[in-house]
Amino acid sequence: MTVVRVNASRKYDVIIGEGIFDDIGKLAKKAVGICKALIITDTNVEPLYAQRLTDSLKKEGFNVIKYVIEAGEASKNADNFIKILNFAAENHLSRSDVFFALGGGVVGDLTGFCAASYLRGVKFIQIPTTLLACVDSSVGGKTAINLDAGKNLAGAFYQPYLVCCDPTVLKTLPDEVFKDGCAEVIKTAILGDEKLFEKLKEKKITSDIIARCIEIKRDVVCEDEHDTGRRQVLNLGHTVGHAIEKLSDFKISHGKAVAIGMAIISNTCLTESECRDAITDMLKLYELPTKCDYSSDDIYKITQTDKKRGSSDITVAIPTTIGNCILKTISMETLKNIIDKGVSNQ
Amino acid sequence: MTVVRVNASRKYDVIIGEGIFDDIGKLAKKAVGICKALIITDTNVEPLYAQRLTDSLKKEGFNVIKYVIEAGEASKNADNFIKILNFAAENHLSRSDVFFALGGGVVGDLTGFCAASYLRGVKFIQIPTTLLACVDSSVGGKTAINLDAGKNLAGAFYQPYLVCCDPTVLKTLPDEVFKDGCAEVIKTAILGDEKLFEKLKEKKITSDIIARCIEIKRDVVCEDEHDTGRRQVLNLGHTVGHAIEKLSDFKISHGKAVAIGMAIISNTCLTESECRDAITDMLKLYELPTKCDYSSDDIYKITQTDKKRGSSDITVAIPTTIGNCILKTISMETLKNIIDKGVSNQ
Repeated sequence: MTVVRVNASRKYDVIIGEGIFDDIGKLAKKAVGICKALIITDTNVEPLYAQRLTDSLKKEGFNVIKYVIEAGEASKNADNFIKILNFAAENHLSRSDVFFALGGGVVGDLTGFCAASYLRGVKFIQIPTTLLACVDSSVGGKTAINLDAGKNLAGAFYQPYLVCCDPTVLKTLPDEVFKDGCAEVIKTAILGDEKLFEKLKEKKITSDIIARCIEIKRDVVCEDEHDTGRRQVLNLGHTVGHAIEKLSDFKISHGKAVAIGMAIISNTCLTESECRDAITDMLKLYELPTKCDYSSDDIYKITQTDKKRGSSDITVAIPTTIGNCILKTISMETLKNIIDKGVSNQ
Repeated sequence: MTVVRVNASRKYDVIIGEGIFDDIGKLAKKAVGICKALIITDTNVEPLYAQRLTDSLKKEGFNVIKYVIEAGEASKNADNFIKILNFAAENHLSRSDVFFALGGGVVGDLTGFCAASYLRGVKFIQIPTTLLACVDSSVGGKTAINLDAGKNLAGAFYQPYLVCCDPTVLKTLPDEVFKDGCAEVIKTAILGDEKLFEKLKEKKITSDIIARCIEIKRDVVCEDEHDTGRRQVLNLGHTVGHAIEKLSDFKISHGKAVAIGMAIISNTCLTESECRDAITDMLKLYELPTKCDYSSDDIYKITQTDKKRGSSDITVAIPTTIGNCILKTISMETLKNIIDKGVSNQ
């Protein structure tokens, strides 16, 4: 069992350990005390893990209720946000009660925003059940819902009180969903740890690797909790990735789009060619795509609507060598040139 | 012009001054820089002040858009919250843009929660147009919407970047709405300043009085921004007041209900009888009610659902002498006895 302590505006532990799932009741009791627990989960995860979590919590004396959303990105919407808030109110949850997010990024982001908003903030525990949620979305306090106009347009910075990550849970993940998580693991190694990157060549995602990814993310987040500077390195591959996701109407998954985005953004004059080759080799090792069928023009057009762009420039994360990544504000024209080069190099 | 500096988690100024309304553009430019401004206001305030605010902002170079809600408490709902977020997104407001709340408590609370949530937080300026909003809701960072299950059940602690309060604006207020604000002014004097209480006997709400109320609230809020302790003294009269509001189906306004609540809660053994008499005399001077037609049993029944109550007790603010107020956790039975005494003393 590894404990990663996060010293954000709220201090909390991320506990990573094989088989800790049935101890979540005990861990939660220690972190937030016995109270009423609202488990929010989705139709994929509910039949697999909701009863086990409920049992573990009830054994310690928690009073447990449950709210199940339809699995999938479309559920991360305003309608479910309001429904969950009303459900909590109807069930008389108080300021001292706790929300559990049992699921992947969609459940975590939605539950986190509900917990941040209900009675202006209640306790909140993340139980990630996808690799992507373990290494990325469940740590760092970014919560959100999608609006009609786009992804993650409303939300809050709201740190959890505890994150419990049991890698054995990941065994039930469909291959393609697991691969999505691998893209974020690779991203984390590229931006922060050459040794980790070497280890990934064994093509085995262990508890230690998950813990190391969480540590790296923790270090970045604690330096810039509200995403005004350094934290943007976590967006490595995301500017181009988001554009590809959108172009595909979300048929290309987030992880795969980010993989392609990383491959493309490595075509800068600041990125050593060994670094660029190592990135594409690693993505291929994990059976992740490094190219797509969209034209450079189409991809560029969508990056122009990126919420991170300024009036004539945009800040992007650029890998220099493996383990090192810089933030660079470049003109939109320079971005266009990089995409051109990335797409033609494929 | 008086400037009250609030050193909360975000530092900001509350500027109080007769006739500053047409300078809001300049003041806002200094506080947040020139950007896109979304003015949120209601159908009462829009015809009176929206154009003047727009002109003042445009003169300084702000790009101004406007969203108008129906006047009244019913508008502080989830539906408007989501509609405003979508409106901001459709109009491409970015992280560096600003939301203006132009109105009373309803507009301020709703706009504040929208600003806290849009892109996980954008800039936010309060232009209170009611006395109650000037002295109470626009300062302190409590934002909220109502849910089907009750008032203020979702929201955020989110401090504004600037509050501009021009008392000349209050001249257009209907008498009854102005009186509601007087109840909060009197409350503030009771809980924090005997000299202010003396001054109120002149029955004239000046800029100085408004500024002093804001200072008192500022001091309480800075000590306990997230409402876990001392801040609850600001709820003086509110436990009983909220119950009366609900019993009347909100026909008795917030200020008047709080006035009755203060008169009733002064009937404790901890409150000196001179203090109790001074409170009721002051409320009567401002033509505020000190009693209602509901029975002690009916009032008590509703206080049992108060979101601040524990399993068998409740923390209430009790005035001891004028200018001093304590927080006391009492059994529900004791609360019942106080309400009994308060109602029979009327």
